[in-house]
Amino acid sequence: MESAATLSQIGLAGLAVMGQNLALNIAEKGFPISVYNRTVTKVDETVDRAHREGGLPLFGQHNPKDFVLSLKRPRSVIILVKAGAPVDQTIAALSEYMEPGDTIIDGGNEWYENTERRISEVSQKGLLYLGMGVSGGEDGARNGPSLMPGGSHRAYLNIHHILDKVAAQVDDGPCVTYIGEGGSGNFVKMVHNGIEYGDMQLISEAYDVLKNVGGLGNEELAAIFDDWNRGELESFLIEITADIFKVEDEEAGVGYLVDKILDKTGMKGTGKWTVQQAAELSIAAPTIAASLDSRYMSGLKEEREAAAEIFKKEGLKEEIINNVAAVDKKKLIDDVRQALYASKICSYAQGMNLLRSKSVEKGWGLNLGELARIWKGGCIIRAVFLDRIKQAYLRNPGLPNLLVDPEFAREMVQRQAAWRRVVGLAIQKGISVPGMSASLQYFDTYRRSSLPANLVQAQRDYFGAHTYERIDRPGSYHTEWSKLARKTKVAR
Amino acid sequence: MESAATLSQIGLAGLAVMGQNLALNIAEKGFPISVYNRTVTKVDETVDRAHREGGLPLFGQHNPKDFVLSLKRPRSVIILVKAGAPVDQTIAALSEYMEPGDTIIDGGNEWYENTERRISEVSQKGLLYLGMGVSGGEDGARNGPSLMPGGSHRAYLNIHHILDKVAAQVDDGPCVTYIGEGGSGNFVKMVHNGIEYGDMQLISEAYDVLKNVGGLGNEELAAIFDDWNRGELESFLIEITADIFKVEDEEAGVGYLVDKILDKTGMKGTGKWTVQQAAELSIAAPTIAASLDSRYMSGLKEEREAAAEIFKKEGLKEEIINNVAAVDKKKLIDDVRQALYASKICSYAQGMNLLRSKSVEKGWGLNLGELARIWKGGCIIRAVFLDRIKQAYLRNPGLPNLLVDPEFAREMVQRQAAWRRVVGLAIQKGISVPGMSASLQYFDTYRRSSLPANLVQAQRDYFGAHTYERIDRPGSYHTEWSKLARKTKVAR
Repeated sequence: MESAATLSQIGLAGLAVMGQNLALNIAEKGFPISVYNRTVTKVDETVDRAHREGGLPLFGQHNPKDFVLSLKRPRSVIILVKAGAPVDQTIAALSEYMEPGDTIIDGGNEWYENTERRISEVSQKGLLYLGMGVSGGEDGARNGPSLMPGGSHRAYLNIHHILDKVAAQVDDGPCVTYIGEGGSGNFVKMVHNGIEYGDMQLISEAYDVLKNVGGLGNEELAAIFDDWNRGELESFLIEITADIFKVEDEEAGVGYLVDKILDKTGMKGTGKWTVQQAAELSIAAPTIAASLDSRYMSGLKEEREAAAEIFKKEGLKEEIINNVAAVDKKKLIDDVRQALYASKICSYAQGMNLLRSKSVEKGWGLNLGELARIWKGGCIIRAVFLDRIKQAYLRNPGLPNLLVDPEFAREMVQRQAAWRRVVGLAIQKGISVPGMSASLQYFDTYRRSSLPANLVQAQRDYFGAHTYERIDRPGSYHTEWSKLARKTKVAR
Repeated sequence: MESAATLSQIGLAGLAVMGQNLALNIAEKGFPISVYNRTVTKVDETVDRAHREGGLPLFGQHNPKDFVLSLKRPRSVIILVKAGAPVDQTIAALSEYMEPGDTIIDGGNEWYENTERRISEVSQKGLLYLGMGVSGGEDGARNGPSLMPGGSHRAYLNIHHILDKVAAQVDDGPCVTYIGEGGSGNFVKMVHNGIEYGDMQLISEAYDVLKNVGGLGNEELAAIFDDWNRGELESFLIEITADIFKVEDEEAGVGYLVDKILDKTGMKGTGKWTVQQAAELSIAAPTIAASLDSRYMSGLKEEREAAAEIFKKEGLKEEIINNVAAVDKKKLIDDVRQALYASKICSYAQGMNLLRSKSVEKGWGLNLGELARIWKGGCIIRAVFLDRIKQAYLRNPGLPNLLVDPEFAREMVQRQAAWRRVVGLAIQKGISVPGMSASLQYFDTYRRSSLPANLVQAQRDYFGAHTYERIDRPGSYHTEWSKLARKTKVAR
């Protein structure tokens, strides 16, 4: 048996891009790590990289048994393999050699219920389990991701000194916290991704309006996004968008690359799950849903091209109005900035409410402000703005909706006129803005004390005897509408 | 043993409102029917009704055995109990006395996968099974519903002569057809209900705009909806809406009842399932989703009232502009009619595409034109307009989207300007129109050959190396965006 001194503090199995980078990050922070991959060339490749990157304490193992036995007890093994069956297979392979008190940490984008099933399964062998969301892509994994570990609190305590160093660091600490029990870590990461869908869609709409209503070119767009990145919109996604507009097309040798990219967007499952869970929990999340739908519709490229032709033949140009009368470029840019910000607040409000609703259902006790805090660095949605969300929940942990936090409410009121102008202009011009529009409708629905739902409920009572309540007295009522309508003075 | 002559042709178990009325309908069409209910007072009540309604051939049974044995073989039993566990319990109670070749027909709003499970379960006893959507509420059940039977084709052939008489009758036949195998009947009914949500939401928005932008009162609204019901919008829901505006408030003795109804809308599960299935199948169904979200947000009455107060304090009135400059009432009414119609086409397009997508996945071979046909009568969404949808699919069974059918395309183009005016006006005024707006965004997204999804895909490639395609050459590309952005001329 090896002496404790030569054992690794943690292990990582699954050395694709994310796994490899996270392992190097852990080693670089001074924690000796063992790595394993079923295809062993990946192991050697990772060991080589660790060597080249300054001799990091990273040790390759070529079989599950050696891998597990190379770890200090209680053992902690992070697995980063494809969600679903590969996770089960990896758990089966490793757990054979693990002992009661050891922990498996799944770092993939796993469906939270799979994590809950596995928690229960491995507990039969006395093993602990964490489902840990990891955001930040390749770069985040290597240099500091946002980490969302949920599951066994004891397992978390075993490794939190490692996670604290490995995570991105922001002004108020490392971008990691214990999320809660069960599959909460995966669920929070799922909603994070749904919010990411929303942010990306809203930015693409801002781009579309500036380009097709304002007539701006890529150089101007780059400058605008650079400028926005110095204000309230400061964030990773705004920053990389500015970069994207600057990249020239080296393949064709002329023009900008962004203009040559096919407008079909890929996706994985997390956005879809977010939308389905929102429906399940009775939470309106229209901005996130619009972002998912936009990805779906982007995939129908050939259908869209055919549709454009058909409507053109019927006399409808793709851009309904070619020159929207007197577009003041400077004002438009400022309006779009405000519309983007206001739309974004609505999207985050939806995501946060979804998290709270699930937390109540599952008894997870999620701390929404703390979640906003750990997203301030490392992850794709990292943004200065997240500190404002953290503050809002600090001020009032029971805040029913971000929109009614005093500071956000004031910002919404300041921006709503510009927002209405942008959406109105886009509608006139025929430029679709499904995300901004969904956010605006969400805002206008949420802030209205009376909606026309009275009519819907009357219809339901008319054809299905579903009854209704009244605004002026308690109780549940049913009316024979058809009979009464016949004897009204209106009908006379 | 009784002689064949005294046996009933069909049985019905579950005598709540829908069951009782459907049983009376069947009896009235001349088919002797046995009825059963666990609470036997319901049986006697139904027998009494059959007697009072002219001595219809309806026979009550007080236990499952007598009930089943009172039926002519091969036996067909319709069950109309609450979806979920009660269906399983009823099947267990009845199937004990049924024989191979007999059929159970579930007429409830059941999740289609439950039906598929039961088809397999009862097949072990040699029993046949149908999951049959029944739409039309109490009145439809009594006088002619729209019926959507799916499952065993043999079972359908056993009873189709009964269903043909019992269903609503329209110009081109009875509102029933064999839908397809498995749970297809339930799935089609689910989407029917999703479309129903959409129709109701769009009508409520038309009402909201006419009332709060146009300043119209209930008497004017009743007249407008009566008028609309004589044109392209002619439908059951428009008809009952006109009725609703006419009903005076007998409870309070003053004013119209619709104004006293609390704006909280109830719901059952089918709208939610429709939205979740759309996400699952990569089909954009934003109008139906907006309708579901509106029901959810209608439930937050107290939150909305509080929000309205908070925003008022920040200087934002509930109705942003009290007098939208020079609203031409007549023009507004005509615009809203067009907006409602165009929005409705988009909603049906979404529902139909969802049906086709599921049909392909499951191999159901759904005939979309025939589905539109059987919705022309009996059901809640019955409308003249459905014949147009039927014709569109007759013209082109492979139609990718209703919007690009030549006739609907022309109608959309004719109505789009009015539609944009209505949504634009509502946005200016702060009146939420989530359904009309979602439909408009759907239209403007679908008819655009180029969407800003190129930027989203560039972002995905930037942070996740997800690669992209190009518009000008084949292949899959990845770019080191950050590196190239630093050496661009824009950054210089």
